Amino acid sequence: MSSSNGKAIICRDTLANGGWKLEDVSVRQPGEGELLVEMVASGVCHTDVLIGGLPNGAAPIAFYPRVLGHEGSGYVRSVGPGVTVAKAGDPVLLSFASCESCAICLASQHSHCVYANELNFGPQPPTFGAPNDAANPSVPGAFFGQSSFASLSIVRQSSVVNASSLVSSKAELQLLAPLGCGVQTGAGTIINAANAQPRDIVCVLGLGGVGLSAIMGAKIQGCRRIIGVDRVASRLELAKAMGATHVIDTSKFGEGETLASAVRAVSEDLGPTVTVDTTGVPALIKAMVEFSRNRGKILQVGSAPFDFKLELSVFDFMVRGLQYIGAVEGQAHPPEFVPKMVRWYKEGKFPVDKMMKLMPAEEFEKAVKEMHDGTTIKPILTWS
Amino acid sequence: MSSSNGKAIICRDTLANGGWKLEDVSVRQPGEGELLVEMVASGVCHTDVLIGGLPNGAAPIAFYPRVLGHEGSGYVRSVGPGVTVAKAGDPVLLSFASCESCAICLASQHSHCVYANELNFGPQPPTFGAPNDAANPSVPGAFFGQSSFASLSIVRQSSVVNASSLVSSKAELQLLAPLGCGVQTGAGTIINAANAQPRDIVCVLGLGGVGLSAIMGAKIQGCRRIIGVDRVASRLELAKAMGATHVIDTSKFGEGETLASAVRAVSEDLGPTVTVDTTGVPALIKAMVEFSRNRGKILQVGSAPFDFKLELSVFDFMVRGLQYIGAVEGQAHPPEFVPKMVRWYKEGKFPVDKMMKLMPAEEFEKAVKEMHDGTTIKPILTWS
Repeated sequence: MSSSNGKAIICRDTLANGGWKLEDVSVRQPGEGELLVEMVASGVCHTDVLIGGLPNGAAPIAFYPRVLGHEGSGYVRSVGPGVTVAKAGDPVLLSFASCESCAICLASQHSHCVYANELNFGPQPPTFGAPNDAANPSVPGAFFGQSSFASLSIVRQSSVVNASSLVSSKAELQLLAPLGCGVQTGAGTIINAANAQPRDIVCVLGLGGVGLSAIMGAKIQGCRRIIGVDRVASRLELAKAMGATHVIDTSKFGEGETLASAVRAVSEDLGPTVTVDTTGVPALIKAMVEFSRNRGKILQVGSAPFDFKLELSVFDFMVRGLQYIGAVEGQAHPPEFVPKMVRWYKEGKFPVDKMMKLMPAEEFEKAVKEMHDGTTIKPILTWS
Repeated sequence: MSSSNGKAIICRDTLANGGWKLEDVSVRQPGEGELLVEMVASGVCHTDVLIGGLPNGAAPIAFYPRVLGHEGSGYVRSVGPGVTVAKAGDPVLLSFASCESCAICLASQHSHCVYANELNFGPQPPTFGAPNDAANPSVPGAFFGQSSFASLSIVRQSSVVNASSLVSSKAELQLLAPLGCGVQTGAGTIINAANAQPRDIVCVLGLGGVGLSAIMGAKIQGCRRIIGVDRVASRLELAKAMGATHVIDTSKFGEGETLASAVRAVSEDLGPTVTVDTTGVPALIKAMVEFSRNRGKILQVGSAPFDFKLELSVFDFMVRGLQYIGAVEGQAHPPEFVPKMVRWYKEGKFPVDKMMKLMPAEEFEKAVKEMHDGTTIKPILTWS
């Protein structure tokens, strides 16, 4: 096998149509500001499933073929010109891409980079080709700057966190792969975007990987009450094990009970001071505006349907002093935030391992299925 | 004249119906936690006109007779039991009322007190009666804890900022009367609620008293660009004199020009990082969401029509990392914030005097008219 050959999950159509296939591929050489990375793992995230479920051409970001995957980790094999973040042999944890030069990036707000959409979701120059034909790539890569659903891929420098001083084994590198997206999104929302404090009562709607990471973030911040909301009993149990002080099972409401009444009942009848929606479900988004405490922070992290509009009663919203905050990637700058999370994990304060399940890359369909039915919170596909 | 006699603008019906009358009254003695204050001045604010323009019974806060006025200043004549904030003879600057004991107040977020609505707008025990009949009051006071459209009134302790160490003359006390509401609302929104920094580009929609105070707040914070928007030329000139680096006259848009395009043109094509709406006008509120920069803070300060709902495209709002923030009274705690503003004024950095116009209380109808047509930004009724 040539050093530029590998395997990748190529999406040639939607997952529902059976369009995702593990294929033998070749990978081109890295160009300016790019690294060739041998992946050891890639977490599976709802965004992969969302994007890889759009009909071809339904939106500018809906196209096939392509390679998804955006919670990668691996070892650098070689680097292109201008790369300073890592060298061949270095372990890396991957995150989203940013231009690093627009006014938003220069203000250290990389997760909302002016070019975030194009760089992370848009069509990019081809990376993958037929085996033994690395000089003629035809399938785009660089999804989130990385396209890590591949044993070998080209990664943009802005997506790379050098993990040389952070991890000491391949197993650790695999386990920590999702830090750069799902975990960062949940924990960062609480820590960076909400700047939650010990006085806060935090409520997290939806306890998938992002929601449980928000629970861990609230625990790190020492928030005095941490409320987890879901309809899957095993997730509620996990939330308690990871830091939730209260949980609400929305599948078990009694007569006349609503989400708002249930949350208020465990938040001093005034509502939480910080609420995070990780679900994107319109009814839950409306409810959190309703039950929040005066001066409450309401954070939108879950992807709502593209056409969903939230109606806010402006006068009421103003008088209550509410804050509605949109946040992507936990408003984190990965080179700063990922090392913090690794340190907390090593100190035993950030039990990400409780929600991870490693599975060979071949089992990607099973991984998605288990993520959807709640059997697995965060599947991680392993490449070696 | 007995020491409990005075004059008050009693609202017996809406202003439009000619229902506001300057009448001779008596004032009862102060009870627990109350002060009897001899007013020297009271600023006129749009909220007075809004509340005193509601038809009787249109809402729980719409009732007559009553005495409005909530930007008062004066000298304490006597105090009731339990009052520690000031003693007879002390000059005071008045602000809104809060319960000082709910969880919101205990978190130093008094302007969004759980009981703010009842305490500031709701029916309260009567304060004013017929002349020489102070023992039988029949007209409610305590609007914003003060009902300062009166030469003599009963004020709640929570509304009082002791100005003994702040002002040195009656003239100064009169000029600074509006600090506790309109000025605090504008400046506090920029300083407290937005926490604007030198790197920020601030845009202020509407240049009345609140808007111009927001301009002054942005200047105090050293914001690198300060954009004022209005349709009255004299207000735009005043904004420049008070700190605006750019102004936009919405009455002079050319073919195809919109508020969004005009604001973007003076904010690096990316939009402001902080925008404050002081108008409550739905079209302007929608526009500020449109033109804000990614990660921009959007502050709602102007009172929108009670039934206006802002529709936010949740996915877009999230991806752009926007923040929509409701703020009342600049999220200020008056005993801390009012002294700061007085200090800035005395240091020549906070030219509130540029927008004030003192008028005898008898001229209240003229004051309202001049505030509406833009001739006067902030009329102050004087009581002596």
